Amino acid sequence: MANPQTIADLGELGLLERLFRYCPGDVVGDDGAVVTLPPGRHLVVTTDVLVEGVHFSDRTTAPADVGWRTVAANLSDLAAMGAEPEGITVGLSLPGHTPIAWVEGLYQGMADCLGRWGGVVLGGDLCRAEVIGVAITALGSVVPQRALYRRSAQPGQAILVTGRHGRSRAGLELLLHPERGAEVAPADRDRWVMAHQRPQPRFDAIAVLQDLIGEAGDTAAIAAMDSSDGLANAVLQLCRASGVGAQLHQDDLPIDRALTDWLGPAQAIDWCLYGGEDFELVLCLPWPLARALRDRLGQTCAIVGETTAALAVEIHAADGDLPQVLSLSQGFQHFG
Amino acid sequence: MANPQTIADLGELGLLERLFRYCPGDVVGDDGAVVTLPPGRHLVVTTDVLVEGVHFSDRTTAPADVGWRTVAANLSDLAAMGAEPEGITVGLSLPGHTPIAWVEGLYQGMADCLGRWGGVVLGGDLCRAEVIGVAITALGSVVPQRALYRRSAQPGQAILVTGRHGRSRAGLELLLHPERGAEVAPADRDRWVMAHQRPQPRFDAIAVLQDLIGEAGDTAAIAAMDSSDGLANAVLQLCRASGVGAQLHQDDLPIDRALTDWLGPAQAIDWCLYGGEDFELVLCLPWPLARALRDRLGQTCAIVGETTAALAVEIHAADGDLPQVLSLSQGFQHFG
Repeated sequence: MANPQTIADLGELGLLERLFRYCPGDVVGDDGAVVTLPPGRHLVVTTDVLVEGVHFSDRTTAPADVGWRTVAANLSDLAAMGAEPEGITVGLSLPGHTPIAWVEGLYQGMADCLGRWGGVVLGGDLCRAEVIGVAITALGSVVPQRALYRRSAQPGQAILVTGRHGRSRAGLELLLHPERGAEVAPADRDRWVMAHQRPQPRFDAIAVLQDLIGEAGDTAAIAAMDSSDGLANAVLQLCRASGVGAQLHQDDLPIDRALTDWLGPAQAIDWCLYGGEDFELVLCLPWPLARALRDRLGQTCAIVGETTAALAVEIHAADGDLPQVLSLSQGFQHFG
Repeated sequence: MANPQTIADLGELGLLERLFRYCPGDVVGDDGAVVTLPPGRHLVVTTDVLVEGVHFSDRTTAPADVGWRTVAANLSDLAAMGAEPEGITVGLSLPGHTPIAWVEGLYQGMADCLGRWGGVVLGGDLCRAEVIGVAITALGSVVPQRALYRRSAQPGQAILVTGRHGRSRAGLELLLHPERGAEVAPADRDRWVMAHQRPQPRFDAIAVLQDLIGEAGDTAAIAAMDSSDGLANAVLQLCRASGVGAQLHQDDLPIDRALTDWLGPAQAIDWCLYGGEDFELVLCLPWPLARALRDRLGQTCAIVGETTAALAVEIHAADGDLPQVLSLSQGFQHFG
């Protein structure tokens, strides 16, 4: 079998021509892309960097999944701001021996994810490097009075979490250790692997929230962020930004029963709180709105506790043990 | 002497706290930054990626210069679109052993460059990697009818180039081979090293152009891009995007006399055309406007030739030799 064609074979200009197919012809080909935002909306911008060997490897992630996940991570940030996607830029660092098929797979995954929720590839940059790096900047637009911030939580609000947590970490485990797949039901295995490979930004939940708020309402009493760095991290960041604390109830944590059955409760709770990359939403909001949102979203969300005037973030077990105090230093750390 | 404190010593959260000092407090700290564009303006977005060992090294570039150059490269793209800077996002890949002072130097250089031409740090992302990577996305705003594109050149227009070319390449040579500094006058050495380390996006030239066009005028008959990948590349890209050719006059190329004296004419012309990273502007525009712009900008610009209906891009020597045909494949290639 012949070796696959690499980007060194094709050259930069040839590669750019291939990648232009994924971009609208009227916005690329200049030093920058000109973008018209919908009237009355403000710009929202967010950036994520993924590096081969840190965030993904050929072992666990096909190029289309790398593309999907990178875009989904950025779109999830836009969703958490109450924004809608307009487009992305792509900064790619690539070794010369990278197969062209890998790069095209990456772009196909990005295009598929954008096709699902909106937005186009607005341009980017290519450069040579020893390992693959993907830097995505996503641009969205938001109606200013409906933007969601981390700093808006108030004491006595409900803390609502969309989706189940720990699924992405479970999917990663099954990709790293395929032999463990025999320990779980195929449907659970598939669901968790998909949660890891093809995360779904929760624009659907934001749309329901905005619908409940109504045209005239605003988001001044709602705090939001996504759970990309873990559920515990999201609660802690929201509390720190808002100057509040939180009481979480361990029994209300949104964990698949099959995950607890597989791992035991301690490990399942750990992955739920610290596993990360579930790309769900964590919201602090008035109780009536939280209950209305929960009723509309059904099993895909849970009220896990309430905000407090005291600044500590504690998690209470049902058995009456002393609450555990959470801190940011327990969360995911990229360096160290 | 103690080892410098590294980002692994400080941890991600500690590093983020240090870097937040370079960001306006009201736009960072959320999943994304909300940006309000000036009324009536459209968004312009551009991205550049720099990698240690490819675009810079400790040998030739202090961290503040890396920061300045990365931002200047992006701002130069905005200038070439006729846009004004609004802000940047910064995607940083860093080895754990990177000194904190290096990262702070990088940010200081970025802040200095933004302070000179406008725009703020709107946020970013940090991740661990084996080598340093810096991905900058710059956001600008433009009055739509005054945006500049590559595709607007028409046959029979003047080709105007700001600044002298080959200076950045000369500066790099002197940084890589300091002993060659003895071959040139100190003032020339300093000018060329500064051209490499602290390039200046030509917002000044764009302001003069916009002033000449007047409030009521538009940019429909002007094509522009910057010369970051070399003067020859810029002319070729403008011609390709516009469906025109060009005749360039070798004697009109904007080369420092001292550069020709140092290198001889052949090498000086080569660095002028292909050296790259001069971050000047290349414009195709009607002759009266070109002459008016040249009169206003003085020695900091040159009319180097004219566009043609025939598609070839040729450069003519004064001595009547056959013209040399330029092609994109001669230009700077990142892979291969």
